Amino acid sequence: MRQFIVVGLGRFGTSVATTLANKEHDVLAIDIDEEKVQEISNQVTHAVQADATSEETLQKLGVDEFDIAIVAIGSNIHGNILATLVLKELGVSHVVVKAQDNLHGKLLSKVGADKVVYPERDMGARVANNLVSANVLDYIELAPNYSIAELIASDKLTGKSLKELDLRSKFGVNVLAIKSNDDVNVSPEAEAVINANDVLVVMGQEKGLSQLKHY
Amino acid sequence: MRQFIVVGLGRFGTSVATTLANKEHDVLAIDIDEEKVQEISNQVTHAVQADATSEETLQKLGVDEFDIAIVAIGSNIHGNILATLVLKELGVSHVVVKAQDNLHGKLLSKVGADKVVYPERDMGARVANNLVSANVLDYIELAPNYSIAELIASDKLTGKSLKELDLRSKFGVNVLAIKSNDDVNVSPEAEAVINANDVLVVMGQEKGLSQLKHY
Ligand SMILES: Nc1ncnc2c1ncn2[C@@H]1O[C@H](COP(=O)(O)OP(=O)(O)OP(=O)(O)O)[C@@H](O)[C@H]1O
Ligand SMILES: Nc1ncnc2c1ncn2[C@@H]1O[C@H](COP(=O)(O)OP(=O)(O)OP(=O)(O)O)[C@@H](O)[C@H]1O
Ligand SMILES: [Ca+2]
Ligand SMILES: [Ca+2]
Ligand SMILES: [Ca+2]
Ligand SMILES: [Ca+2]
Repeated sequence: MRQFIVVGLGRFGTSVATTLANKEHDVLAIDIDEEKVQEISNQVTHAVQADATSEETLQKLGVDEFDIAIVAIGSNIHGNILATLVLKELGVSHVVVKAQDNLHGKLLSKVGADKVVYPERDMGARVANNLVSANVLDYIELAPNYSIAELIASDKLTGKSLKELDLRSKFGVNVLAIKSNDDVNVSPEAEAVINANDVLVVMGQEKGLSQLKHY
Repeated sequence: MRQFIVVGLGRFGTSVATTLANKEHDVLAIDIDEEKVQEISNQVTHAVQADATSEETLQKLGVDEFDIAIVAIGSNIHGNILATLVLKELGVSHVVVKAQDNLHGKLLSKVGADKVVYPERDMGARVANNLVSANVLDYIELAPNYSIAELIASDKLTGKSLKELDLRSKFGVNVLAIKSNDDVNVSPEAEAVINANDVLVVMGQEKGLSQLKHY
């Protein structure tokens, strides 16, 4: 169990705080807006109404006892930067900060932010990528040219066994798992049959994955 | 090349629009705020200042010619819902909408949204997960209890072959690939040796992955 401070309880900050708390970590959640504090109060260890740009206030809250802070103040860029500065001054070793854009991100690094995140930008890119390849559900890029992807099985694949399909020689891809509803068949045998709406977890070169995607 | 409409050019909407445009897709970007339109104008096919809740305006812009729309209007929830409704009325077949919370999401589905996304909430969960497991680089959840993860090889693993380590019987995990610098050894043989700073792509139950992570 670790101790986290989350400053700024917008949608992003709230999600960070509740996810950490759900994993049994100790979370001190701070917002200048009493209403936000009320909303989260029974979901985290401590929730406090406070101005996170005030060094004195944060000191009184004992933030120097915490290892990791997430600054999720948004449109108040001045407050976002000041809160970062104060947390570093008070000795929090790892401060992660949400930035609005690249310029803001650079400033944050200069004042000591250990990590800068761009949630809206990253999710925008993710959603756009998913729209373009509509049947790709998730992927890990192993190397610039090599990925693991989750694909919805196309009509051409359903009703056939992996042996019949022989995706390895057709597309150079390995089937790591077959997901049907809530069931997962991991390392499926050659006899495993693909059903309609199954999701295939496949590994291979981008080219082969792309061919399979459009097969 | 497909044709997309992006309504609402906040950080999320801007990222969706520019990502699609960078992939050579046709993008019509709309915001009620002239300044947002100016900022994106040389990065997308068309950028127009318009109120997306006006059916007449959208009709004049020819939105019925587009297949996919993304509604990224944020704090103006009324506008977000109305724009969704109007786009569906005008016959856009696939409308993806950014929601503020679950209640908003439910409403959106009722008025015809084909997909609802929660960028801040999803990235919040992602950032929290990454903070908790500092050496997990990326993961795909195959099932509630089963994942593929990228782990940085701990000291205990380095200098040993997969055969010696026998992670399958120790933790019930399969090593799908070993990444060293820019090289990836996919489906490594039992003799493959893990070097310092290698990244392992492993598949298994959460419990085994977690044990391996802390091994
Ligand atoms: N000085 C401050 N101290 C503490 N909290 C603050 C301070 N300034 C702003 N906040 C809080 O930060 C929270 C997040 O800010 P804001 O809503 O502007 O961000 P956002 O980027 O729109 O958030 P999201 O997109 O995640 O919903 C708000 O609840 C706000 O009250
Ligand atoms: N009726 C409307 N028609 C077109 N655009 C609109 C309308 N209402 C609001 N918008 C635009 O939607 C954009 C995004 O809205 P807003 O900034 O509230 O969202 P947000 O959730 O804070 O965005 P993000 O977190 O992605 O930065 C704004 O640029 C705003 O001008
Ligand atoms: Ca906000
Ligand atoms: Ca992923
Ligand atoms: Ca905004
Ligand atoms: Ca936001």
